[in-house]
Amino acid sequence: MQVKSILTADQFTRSDLDLILNKTALIESLLKNHKQLNILNEYILATMFFEPSTRTRLSFESAMHRLGGRVVTAVGMQFSSLAKGETLFDTLKVLESYADICAIRHPVEGASTVAAKSISIPVINAGDGAGEHPTQAILDLYTISVYKDIIHKKIKVGFVGDIKYGRTIHSLIKLLSKYNASFIFISPSEIGLPDKYKEALTNQNIEYKETSDIDALAECDVGYITRIQEERFLDHSTFEKFKDLYIINKNLLKKCREDIIIMHPLPRLNEVSTEIDQMPQAVYFKQAEYGLYSRMTLLLYVTGLLDKLDAFK
Amino acid sequence: MQVKSILTADQFTRSDLDLILNKTALIESLLKNHKQLNILNEYILATMFFEPSTRTRLSFESAMHRLGGRVVTAVGMQFSSLAKGETLFDTLKVLESYADICAIRHPVEGASTVAAKSISIPVINAGDGAGEHPTQAILDLYTISVYKDIIHKKIKVGFVGDIKYGRTIHSLIKLLSKYNASFIFISPSEIGLPDKYKEALTNQNIEYKETSDIDALAECDVGYITRIQEERFLDHSTFEKFKDLYIINKNLLKKCREDIIIMHPLPRLNEVSTEIDQMPQAVYFKQAEYGLYSRMTLLLYVTGLLDKLDAFK
Amino acid sequence: MQVKSILTADQFTRSDLDLILNKTALIESLLKNHKQLNILNEYILATMFFEPSTRTRLSFESAMHRLGGRVVTAVGMQFSSLAKGETLFDTLKVLESYADICAIRHPVEGASTVAAKSISIPVINAGDGAGEHPTQAILDLYTISVYKDIIHKKIKVGFVGDIKYGRTIHSLIKLLSKYNASFIFISPSEIGLPDKYKEALTNQNIEYKETSDIDALAECDVGYITRIQEERFLDHSTFEKFKDLYIINKNLLKKCREDIIIMHPLPRLNEVSTEIDQMPQAVYFKQAEYGLYSRMTLLLYVTGLLDKLDAFK
Repeated sequence: MQVKSILTADQFTRSDLDLILNKTALIESLLKNHKQLNILNEYILATMFFEPSTRTRLSFESAMHRLGGRVVTAVGMQFSSLAKGETLFDTLKVLESYADICAIRHPVEGASTVAAKSISIPVINAGDGAGEHPTQAILDLYTISVYKDIIHKKIKVGFVGDIKYGRTIHSLIKLLSKYNASFIFISPSEIGLPDKYKEALTNQNIEYKETSDIDALAECDVGYITRIQEERFLDHSTFEKFKDLYIINKNLLKKCREDIIIMHPLPRLNEVSTEIDQMPQAVYFKQAEYGLYSRMTLLLYVTGLLDKLDAFK
Repeated sequence: MQVKSILTADQFTRSDLDLILNKTALIESLLKNHKQLNILNEYILATMFFEPSTRTRLSFESAMHRLGGRVVTAVGMQFSSLAKGETLFDTLKVLESYADICAIRHPVEGASTVAAKSISIPVINAGDGAGEHPTQAILDLYTISVYKDIIHKKIKVGFVGDIKYGRTIHSLIKLLSKYNASFIFISPSEIGLPDKYKEALTNQNIEYKETSDIDALAECDVGYITRIQEERFLDHSTFEKFKDLYIINKNLLKKCREDIIIMHPLPRLNEVSTEIDQMPQAVYFKQAEYGLYSRMTLLLYVTGLLDKLDAFK
Repeated sequence: MQVKSILTADQFTRSDLDLILNKTALIESLLKNHKQLNILNEYILATMFFEPSTRTRLSFESAMHRLGGRVVTAVGMQFSSLAKGETLFDTLKVLESYADICAIRHPVEGASTVAAKSISIPVINAGDGAGEHPTQAILDLYTISVYKDIIHKKIKVGFVGDIKYGRTIHSLIKLLSKYNASFIFISPSEIGLPDKYKEALTNQNIEYKETSDIDALAECDVGYITRIQEERFLDHSTFEKFKDLYIINKNLLKKCREDIIIMHPLPRLNEVSTEIDQMPQAVYFKQAEYGLYSRMTLLLYVTGLLDKLDAFK
């Protein structure tokens, strides 16, 4: 088995991404006629969630099950040895005999890179603090590709909300930069796009603009909304000022293109009104479903078994 | 797959119940020669336990495994998104792609009904606060049917303990009302049967009486004992007054019919003495075992696959 | 199925141990060509961890999966019924219909023996407080047997650290006493070997000596290092005095035999320097790997299915 880990959105070339989108579409289509694609039958996935994230964990675990695989899991406070002072290296080291793939979620940036250095099995970063969340970025990219022809056409993506701290946004920008996309960042300037990302866009000659006006969404093909996270703000009053600043509702959608899609990595609070849940523009629940297919692809990608999908065609 | 959820004991007709009892007896008998009945091989059950209940959860999970199925699980404090303010609807919505069946336990009455409205896969109520616990009622009914010929004979069931708050009692009364049963409710009047249940019995011309005298158990075919739950009482002294009021022990059983069966939904404290554990009358541990068979039946019921059992005959 | 539980290191005869070592070696070799040995396909293991121990739990669960089996699990605070006052007997009793094997970890000494008396399925003690940890002792013995010819030669084993409270040491001494081994106990006298173990060694004419000098490791074939556990000391200053007393590092290894192996049950803190992790003497991560194979053997041992391994030869 060739060991590939998934640690950062940066690691993917355009050709990797095209392959992944392609295989994910194949999986989505195969699952219409198969409940399960038995490829990872004798493989064990360890989901090591040092901070809880039920949705992401269940998405990985279901993906593994739908590929015929097996799962062992550890969540949050169960990590007693860490409490006793054990290093992450030691905690994970033993996994290389217990499992064939490790999906790790950790509150500290860079933890998944440490993990990948510790063990000889593929590691998948399932979110590491303020760092990366590459599998979320892949599922976001796949979602866009389902609704928009990103291979042949230029698209304009509007990001709304907390663009400073939103790691899913940072990862998705990296992936979309490999396609023909331009960006509008809609946020108060205090929580706008950090300079290093702006520089990267400028260096790649990628068109973007910044605004605090939500009406800018009117010119976008995709609206990607994020929650403004209270835990990011030192003072409560700043948070209060921002939290209900942008609300996506029926009124706002009237000003937008009819074929705009509204995405959200979930959980959402008020920033997307439930009144639009049933509208065709609202694709955030489909996005979670696409997470299943994308993660199935990524589990096959890290085990070098993507080709086995061809047997089901 | 035809979607049927199990939300309340009220939903079952007599003919549903007869079918379920019948199939449960078939499963019990098949498991003497099979460790596993491979019917749900490519199905995933999500056990979403927003409050912990190890016995009930393991019962569902083992039932799924014994049918060849797979399980993903989330328990208690792992639900980080709810802590961030996410609605139950949003939390559950994503499950419809991750799983094929959802068993939900929740501290709030009505939560499973919300769940069933949220998602397009079958939902099984595994207990929702002061509301219902229909799968417990089914396993209780099955237990009675193993020991008593409820199809052909009239039975008298004595309920003992906290009849006011005991949700398993309320659900079981509903099911037994569809058979030829009469009831004795044995409790202090302060924690007696709520009026709405009495009215329902009266409207159906079902015979019942109320008493605080435990000796009334002498005339019963079934004694269904419940724990008096401290958390239900506002003042500790009332709880203290009631907690050891009724104790089922060898002495009491001497006054009862020789073929009485003593049931308890567990956990028990002092209300059933361990000195009777080995007596034939004590069926509470068998009751837990019957929970496995009943829940296997219900997993097949919600997926519309009960007929597949015939292949094993 | 013949029910054998694993409760204490004392229960194994020399011939049991030889069989177990032999089968574990067979499993290790078979796993080079098989990812999974499908012997326990329709069996369910319940891992009941009343105190968390992620490494041990995952080791059991992976072992079960690698044998084709299924797992249900309950960890720590999930045991709500115990919090309500239920006895361990009642909590476990229901497992006998839900699972085929129960691996139990519990903070109270003797809990696994209570468990084995409660239920009619095999119970495996996965550590019970200050009591026993027999599966750790088996994996330790297997590790030694991989590197040293314990069947034909005499070996000298040096135990270092907390020899008073280290339950893994106590269990391992019992197993090694059935082979041709002598012991050196290296610790401050305050945390030396308890008298009852010394008497047992004397009664069996087994050679041992005690010292506080770490240089005694120079004459050993095996160095078994343990963490000095803060939670065992009433006063913090005594702990501080002992905690960094013995540190196994490159310098120390220079004084030792070239073929010494350094073992540790993990988690480790400072007592084994990470600078030796890559040296051939350091076998503590292999030890964890051998835990997988040993526990596979033990799962087959308790179900009476060890012979099924022959089919894979």
